[in-house]
Amino acid sequence: MTQHKADQTEAVAAPHLEVIPLGGMGEIGKNITAYRFEDEIMIVDAGLAFPESHQMGIDLIIPRIDYLQQNAGLIKGMILTHGHEDHIGSLPYVLPRLPRIPVYGAGLTLGLVREKLSEFGIKDGDVDLREIGLTDKIRIGTHFQVEFIRMTHSIPDNAGYILTTPAGVVLHTGDFKLDEEPSDGKLSDLARIEQAGKDGVLLLLSDSTNAERPGRTASEADVARSLETLIAGIKGRVFMTTFASNVHRIQNVINIAHRQSRRVVMEGRSMLKYAQVSQQLGYMELPEPFLTNDEVGGLQDQQVLYVCTGSQGQPMSVLSRLAFGNHAKIALRRGDSVILSSNPIPGNEEAVNLVINRLYEIGVDVYYPHLQGARLRARQPGRTRHDPEPRAAQVFLPWHGEPRHQINHARLAQTLPRPPKRTLIAKNGDVIRLSQDEFKVTGTVPAGAVYVDGLGVGDIGDDVLLDRVNMSQEGILIMTAVLHPTPHVEIVSRGFVRANRELDGQIRKVALEAIEQGLREKKRLEDVRDDMYGAVRRFVRKVTGRNPVLIPLLVD
Amino acid sequence: MTQHKADQTEAVAAPHLEVIPLGGMGEIGKNITAYRFEDEIMIVDAGLAFPESHQMGIDLIIPRIDYLQQNAGLIKGMILTHGHEDHIGSLPYVLPRLPRIPVYGAGLTLGLVREKLSEFGIKDGDVDLREIGLTDKIRIGTHFQVEFIRMTHSIPDNAGYILTTPAGVVLHTGDFKLDEEPSDGKLSDLARIEQAGKDGVLLLLSDSTNAERPGRTASEADVARSLETLIAGIKGRVFMTTFASNVHRIQNVINIAHRQSRRVVMEGRSMLKYAQVSQQLGYMELPEPFLTNDEVGGLQDQQVLYVCTGSQGQPMSVLSRLAFGNHAKIALRRGDSVILSSNPIPGNEEAVNLVINRLYEIGVDVYYPHLQGARLRARQPGRTRHDPEPRAAQVFLPWHGEPRHQINHARLAQTLPRPPKRTLIAKNGDVIRLSQDEFKVTGTVPAGAVYVDGLGVGDIGDDVLLDRVNMSQEGILIMTAVLHPTPHVEIVSRGFVRANRELDGQIRKVALEAIEQGLREKKRLEDVRDDMYGAVRRFVRKVTGRNPVLIPLLVD
Repeated sequence: MTQHKADQTEAVAAPHLEVIPLGGMGEIGKNITAYRFEDEIMIVDAGLAFPESHQMGIDLIIPRIDYLQQNAGLIKGMILTHGHEDHIGSLPYVLPRLPRIPVYGAGLTLGLVREKLSEFGIKDGDVDLREIGLTDKIRIGTHFQVEFIRMTHSIPDNAGYILTTPAGVVLHTGDFKLDEEPSDGKLSDLARIEQAGKDGVLLLLSDSTNAERPGRTASEADVARSLETLIAGIKGRVFMTTFASNVHRIQNVINIAHRQSRRVVMEGRSMLKYAQVSQQLGYMELPEPFLTNDEVGGLQDQQVLYVCTGSQGQPMSVLSRLAFGNHAKIALRRGDSVILSSNPIPGNEEAVNLVINRLYEIGVDVYYPHLQGARLRARQPGRTRHDPEPRAAQVFLPWHGEPRHQINHARLAQTLPRPPKRTLIAKNGDVIRLSQDEFKVTGTVPAGAVYVDGLGVGDIGDDVLLDRVNMSQEGILIMTAVLHPTPHVEIVSRGFVRANRELDGQIRKVALEAIEQGLREKKRLEDVRDDMYGAVRRFVRKVTGRNPVLIPLLVD
Repeated sequence: MTQHKADQTEAVAAPHLEVIPLGGMGEIGKNITAYRFEDEIMIVDAGLAFPESHQMGIDLIIPRIDYLQQNAGLIKGMILTHGHEDHIGSLPYVLPRLPRIPVYGAGLTLGLVREKLSEFGIKDGDVDLREIGLTDKIRIGTHFQVEFIRMTHSIPDNAGYILTTPAGVVLHTGDFKLDEEPSDGKLSDLARIEQAGKDGVLLLLSDSTNAERPGRTASEADVARSLETLIAGIKGRVFMTTFASNVHRIQNVINIAHRQSRRVVMEGRSMLKYAQVSQQLGYMELPEPFLTNDEVGGLQDQQVLYVCTGSQGQPMSVLSRLAFGNHAKIALRRGDSVILSSNPIPGNEEAVNLVINRLYEIGVDVYYPHLQGARLRARQPGRTRHDPEPRAAQVFLPWHGEPRHQINHARLAQTLPRPPKRTLIAKNGDVIRLSQDEFKVTGTVPAGAVYVDGLGVGDIGDDVLLDRVNMSQEGILIMTAVLHPTPHVEIVSRGFVRANRELDGQIRKVALEAIEQGLREKKRLEDVRDDMYGAVRRFVRKVTGRNPVLIPLLVD
């Protein structure tokens, strides 16, 4: 903060905007960006991230917002680009920590936000949600004018925006998947982006996610046609899974089922939640009502299609329970077909692989993108690297990606007919000063991860995670030394080795010898304890080759 | 075993062979197969597997060989198909547990076996290694005749074999990557396979690894040409990594370096080991000697090429230490180029991604297969799904793959002009009876995983792993209740939450109340301990939403 404040005192020639990514820069997840102009701050999105494998036991990760809390009085409003978890997922944590500010978003986005906030007991009256249309212009504070731009993505009502400030114009694509044939017929407004380019854009911020992947992503319409052909050829029950938020994909499957005289059963909490919100707000239409599993008893196998959770191999999802035979009501059998209409997100490959193998073992027919035969041509609905041709941005900030994506996105921009004059690879917490003359990092503010685990927010730090990692690798060995009346030692272990009386006896002996020697030498008790610790550590390492977490307890 | 023995007593019409996969069936890893004809057993390979992420702290996994130990007197010999870890890696554990038997393998395979055994203190005289050429015919026992067949793969001296028994002929492809332009010019002997087909094959066993992937794998020569072009365009230092066992790839890189006037530095224990064995046995030739890192000081950056370990993101590998700035002697800098000439094995994606991102952050140029621009066209040297056209196998056993690979391999076989009459999807431990009339599973023998962790082999079971998983998710909380003179409770935790005196105090109070009540009611001590356990579990769950592993200790 010191560094940042110091910079404020410099004399500045042109009016400047500060762009301060607090999450989502140098990573994929927990997007949140602050714009600051003089004494006004505007926020874009407040998402969460899912833990990586070494972040053991963590449920989810939210961004640090110290900067926003310390400058709470300056915050004039927030806009939301779309309803994915990495853009709205930390709102229940962020909003209660900030003053009441207007939060702008499109219809489905706010519908999902309301649902999410209510799960956390935050009532509609507690927040100031304001619905916008995807061509609306709004003013935030006195300095920020925001114009929303429709961009196609794997969730409806997705927005980019043009931010006009006294320092210049920022064009932010938001997340996008360019689709020339979207399910709702609503195309990305590339014309508006082109016009903005002609009018003059100072800074372009754009999604770097798939910057390494060549080619185009299949249109949602292509995916639907593949699914229609695939399902038409299936005789038995169909179980289909994809991201619950992919409302268009699910609508298409509902329509396909209707055309092929299959009734749809939705299974899984998040599927039902998205379907309910989407229907209420008019983003999903049912040709006939969903049935419950109990209601399909009279139907033939080829008259049923289940849409279920589990596309990422989540252990408690419907598909995982089906694969492992743990579902209370439904049992898969030969003749059933399972369609995974999504690719594993990096990190989930192993879990998805486990589910797929179990499905094969049951003997059901399994269709998934990796099976690159002619069976399922549907490609991952991810984003594409094709930029909406930023024509005249002076400077470029590759956003929403790990360093490998950001840097390749920057390289890609250099191959355009009119490449940006300057590109900056930024990190979370960087304070990026932007004016007609400047585009540079002038300081940093605190930014990083807050771990959410159970009911606790932020009570788990990297030290706690390190203990978890160590215990997971080697287990734990607890030595309780009781000094009176006669010194003796008890051993308890978890995750160390199988119950082994001989080894336990040896360890107790080593520990006891260390204690007795310490007592004879009249050492302080904490030194006696340390001696026991050291003796047992050396002994265990020598005999087993392992380094369990050792807990020496001394009862005087 | 009971089931198996019972089957032995059935009357059998034709002479029959038993095929008993003890590892490598339904999985990729720890390959070991037993063939039994009457009172003779022959073994193929003895490999290891690497742990999956839920097998926490495990170093490696070896197959259970109870069946072999129980029938030790019948074992007549063993053959090794090639020198990869999943085919020879468990030899140091398996051989000492079996009687001295002849072990046949090609030159490089035995060279790597000798190196491995010597690391475990097993001397040449302790084992009976017999070198064969890749067209040799040998006899094992009185019933088994084995003819080795050269098959190209990502390691030299790779073999399939034709096993002739009184029950019929088995053709086993072994692992393979069909390469029409192999670096050593030694092609797969497809003509011999074709001839075997004409002569009559009863059973085909074939590698299922990439059965889901369409197309062909690039020839090693194609990869070499891509690398030559890539390296020719690099001005600074080059750091290249691939599997250390990919001797041909490394030879090609050495040749490229020589042609481009770069001196080669080998870094990393396994790189040096493979290079040393390969040179000694004539599988690698150096146009000039390797230099050490200390010797390249006088050279310009573009005169140096490092071949280093770390293609899988292994934390202690050279590339990881370079990426994280932990290498004692070498520091990466802008202008350096790093080439990862291999794809991550499933499960290693996250580790490799971490390394790649760190390299980008340092500012070096990074080349890897996923970067699908024109920069590195080298494809993964994995196996291809193209079978060596088994023409006349009557029955087919898809081997070396998870169920998804086995089943898709079986489907692929059905698309051949002359598909096998029967296919069987087998599991480890299945006893598969094979004769002119029969091809079926008639029983099972014990098979499964033995975990190796530190110096311990088999002293870690699934119960211990479950403790590790639980502790990694929620941490551990140890309550020591001391009853005399005045009852009091001490709390120690690891991986639970950050040091929190208030919470500790509350937990101690809850525990103490449970104890005092139990003592007042004169309960037995173990019941008092259970009461404390239950009270704390409920309290912690309510207050934190978590379920740490609880260890209640009572000191009377």
